[in-house]
Amino acid sequence: MLGLMQDQPLLISSLIEFAERHNGDGEIVSRRVEGDIHRCTWRDIASRAKQVANALDGEQLLFSDRIATLAWNGYRHLELYYGVSGSGRVLHTINPRLHPDQIAWIANHAEDQILCFDLTFLPLVQAVHARCPTIRKWVALCDADKLPADSGVPNLVSYESWMGSQPAEYEWPSFDENSASSMCYTSGTTGNPKAALYSHRSTLLHAYAAALPDVMHLSARDSVLPVVPMFHVNAWGIPYSAALVGCKLVFPGPALDGKSVYDLIEAEGVTFAAGVPTVWQMLLGHMQAGGLKFSKLNRTVIGGSACPPAMIKAFQDLYNVEVLHAWGMTEMSPLGTLCTLKNKHLSLPADAQLQIRMKQGRAIFGVDMKIIDGDGKELPWDGKAYGDLLVKGPWIVKEYFKGEGGDPLIPDERNRGWFPTGDVATIDAEGYLQITDRSKDVIKSGGEWISSIDIENIAVAHPAVAMAACIGVFHPKWDERPIIAVVKKPNAEVTREELLKFYEGKTAKWQIPDDVVFVEAIPIGATGKILKTKLRELLKDYKLPGL
Amino acid sequence: MLGLMQDQPLLISSLIEFAERHNGDGEIVSRRVEGDIHRCTWRDIASRAKQVANALDGEQLLFSDRIATLAWNGYRHLELYYGVSGSGRVLHTINPRLHPDQIAWIANHAEDQILCFDLTFLPLVQAVHARCPTIRKWVALCDADKLPADSGVPNLVSYESWMGSQPAEYEWPSFDENSASSMCYTSGTTGNPKAALYSHRSTLLHAYAAALPDVMHLSARDSVLPVVPMFHVNAWGIPYSAALVGCKLVFPGPALDGKSVYDLIEAEGVTFAAGVPTVWQMLLGHMQAGGLKFSKLNRTVIGGSACPPAMIKAFQDLYNVEVLHAWGMTEMSPLGTLCTLKNKHLSLPADAQLQIRMKQGRAIFGVDMKIIDGDGKELPWDGKAYGDLLVKGPWIVKEYFKGEGGDPLIPDERNRGWFPTGDVATIDAEGYLQITDRSKDVIKSGGEWISSIDIENIAVAHPAVAMAACIGVFHPKWDERPIIAVVKKPNAEVTREELLKFYEGKTAKWQIPDDVVFVEAIPIGATGKILKTKLRELLKDYKLPGL
Ligand SMILES: Nc1ncnc2c1ncn2[C@@H]1O[C@H](COP(=O)(O)O)[C@@H](O)[C@H]1O
Repeated sequence: MLGLMQDQPLLISSLIEFAERHNGDGEIVSRRVEGDIHRCTWRDIASRAKQVANALDGEQLLFSDRIATLAWNGYRHLELYYGVSGSGRVLHTINPRLHPDQIAWIANHAEDQILCFDLTFLPLVQAVHARCPTIRKWVALCDADKLPADSGVPNLVSYESWMGSQPAEYEWPSFDENSASSMCYTSGTTGNPKAALYSHRSTLLHAYAAALPDVMHLSARDSVLPVVPMFHVNAWGIPYSAALVGCKLVFPGPALDGKSVYDLIEAEGVTFAAGVPTVWQMLLGHMQAGGLKFSKLNRTVIGGSACPPAMIKAFQDLYNVEVLHAWGMTEMSPLGTLCTLKNKHLSLPADAQLQIRMKQGRAIFGVDMKIIDGDGKELPWDGKAYGDLLVKGPWIVKEYFKGEGGDPLIPDERNRGWFPTGDVATIDAEGYLQITDRSKDVIKSGGEWISSIDIENIAVAHPAVAMAACIGVFHPKWDERPIIAVVKKPNAEVTREELLKFYEGKTAKWQIPDDVVFVEAIPIGATGKILKTKLRELLKDYKLPGL
Repeated sequence: MLGLMQDQPLLISSLIEFAERHNGDGEIVSRRVEGDIHRCTWRDIASRAKQVANALDGEQLLFSDRIATLAWNGYRHLELYYGVSGSGRVLHTINPRLHPDQIAWIANHAEDQILCFDLTFLPLVQAVHARCPTIRKWVALCDADKLPADSGVPNLVSYESWMGSQPAEYEWPSFDENSASSMCYTSGTTGNPKAALYSHRSTLLHAYAAALPDVMHLSARDSVLPVVPMFHVNAWGIPYSAALVGCKLVFPGPALDGKSVYDLIEAEGVTFAAGVPTVWQMLLGHMQAGGLKFSKLNRTVIGGSACPPAMIKAFQDLYNVEVLHAWGMTEMSPLGTLCTLKNKHLSLPADAQLQIRMKQGRAIFGVDMKIIDGDGKELPWDGKAYGDLLVKGPWIVKEYFKGEGGDPLIPDERNRGWFPTGDVATIDAEGYLQITDRSKDVIKSGGEWISSIDIENIAVAHPAVAMAACIGVFHPKWDERPIIAVVKKPNAEVTREELLKFYEGKTAKWQIPDDVVFVEAIPIGATGKILKTKLRELLKDYKLPGL
């Protein structure tokens, strides 16, 4: 017997409809590519998203056709989020930090029909347009008078002239909530990129979950700054959850340096910001240099790479900002776990609480997780046993777009499929996850595993270290031994010996790196993560001392 | 094109599975009918819910068979919530405050197969069992040795002997998320009761929404006391949302007097409690008498009837407890709106904030609402225009069980069905709802409407008034004029003239009641709401002064 509740599909259009009706004058503030600050409201976004939908209808686009973006975080990008998905097309956000060859490959693989881009990325568009035959129109996210006259790109129009003349009335269509809404290619380090294809249902469930008090804790009282890009896993879902709660949204545009981010946080009363550790490093550097404080920021979610404990402590002790350590991935929409305390932890001393906060956190309802050994056997949740991390849930992929890479899921004894994350982790008795490594970055020394993240976290806690990356190098006796590549802070000094000494007492002796390599920079990938493959390549002629 | 996310139905069993795996030792504390305090954990609830499921399987019950409860809030009731719905049966919570004739009628209409009851309700069971032919087993929620020997009820077993011997292993079945999960009959004042039939999907979406920061704001750090009964609209969904967030749960059992509730709040570090105004009135009375304070309680959600502003102020000013004024109904699972501020309100002075807090609040994402005039035309959101309130959303009924009452929905121009709530309300430009009345309680005086709620709110703000109810009585010139029935506080005095004088300046002159009728008690219905039909009956021989 079925229940007798109203049949209402979970559609992305209902988010923008809700924001329009119930939080119409909530503010959307954007730093633009042009450099100025733009202000509008949820009501404006809603009516302009309808103009976008009308413009797309005018292009004779079919249901599920892909519309690509190469854009920073800003109001026009937000309009596309709703106009494209709301009208039944698929929003394909492309990471502009990828190599032009990869961008062309991705656009062809996705069969993008239209590509909308910030003028920052005109050179990229000029480099790839001839190789993207499926794209029939290039839309520059600017006013008509900003459109470059001689770009050499055919079928180029300005966004404002393209959608600006369209009516702002539009009846959002209703359809199967399992329909595709958006897609994002993973920064796959091996082989061709593969795309996660999100649905309206998965996006809405994720939007509810992401706003929960134990997740991003979003309310109508917040002013929210997503520094995480809208071109990577939908800025962790913030554009959707923000409409769901009707908060103020603040977009940083292309200006991600410490000063620009700090100024925006202060000017717009930002209460909550989201970003990866590398961006926060710049912000903290700027604040420390200037002796600055936050006036309203009270919490930040940090993920994408392990957040060094030193950063968690700095935010907490120096700035009174709660760090919510998060873990997720493109294939997970992206949120998997988030670190908040439980009722029983409230009476613990501050230091014990900090120990918990350093982990990647607990599963969000909707996500289940487990760790398995090499034989697929589930490992205990004791905070010690580590193994391959598997996940399942309604906002986790079951396969990739066009079936690339085959069926990734691993069935359990009840024949439920689990997605292998490629991460290695422990889970403790309370359900707190700790990522020890990407499985391909784990260092195997004498039959034991060393977590490269642990080794890096110790190095960056040293006051002279700006960034650190640990890799394993060949050793005839131990198979592999860890070394640490280090970028020093400007004007700071530390020697190899001092840093190795710094490890003593902080980790087991046999886990201390065999060597320190000082470098000018550490290669960072398109999503802000350290590129260890690249680092290994750079250090391929390196030999351990004494060998 | 469909998205490629994992297909995972939204099932109630996934809530208890999640609580078991991720918050297994979260506490469940219950004051029992026996009088003592019982302690267990989410893990215990999960394994005992599996025992219940096995016991139900053993009874050869079919998918969707109804299992009824007549029970207070407690751990065994919680086990039934999960064991019954999780195994695919429908949990039918019966309100024990109904008349035995109504209970028998309801049990027959629902075709209940098994009825589980707290021993408090044995006399009720004895009164109705012979009239309930579909019920094949009566399960007393007690240990085997507490079972009365000569109850006269055939097929009576104790819960512990019935489920206690079952294995705690059970594989929760997977099925269509639109399947019926539970049902609740409305306290319909006219005609036979009608049942809302909830689904797994509607329950899970409501569970996500109810936990949001702008709704009940539930996290794993909370200790939650649902004083609202599990026999009425699933205690506002708290048993589900609590599993979703893994908080501590505290059940009051049958002891709802001020002292018992206060003692439990303090002993169990309750941070959040939910109840109707009449119960909170008892709590506040107890606290005022004893000069007591709360040590951890920081917020409470109050709904079910309009919360008098005086109560909101008392909680806030005297006890530093935030009142979240909520509105909903059985047909809405039940949450519709909840009153929290927006970002733009944070800079308002305290008094202006309080003015907002007195309204019933803003729609929760998932719910949409509108007000219409007598011709079905949508009215403006200006905080002044009032009309019939209509709602729609995935946790709102589309029709009643067995089609009782026909198709209640009212289609709009896009042919989407809206449920008429029977309430009359205003909505302001910010989307804040204010209920002015039940449509059948509105007083029509000289062509104008008077809100009985407004008139009552003023009366209960008088220090000598414990409870007040306003009804309209016949008047030859004005059609109707309001009078106010008042129960005085113990040992407090106020005269008719003093109370009428108290209205001056607080409302328009023509809205001031024509008379005050002092009464010993005001009739309260099974869900804690004033029964105006009954009051009108009691006062049927009343005549306005001077007529
Ligand atoms: N908090 C975190 N700590 C450690 N690694 C993380 C964290 N968050 C994300 N990652 C890594 O980033 C991967 C996902 O990358 P992406 O799909 O590009 O978002 C995960 O599989 C992890 O390896």
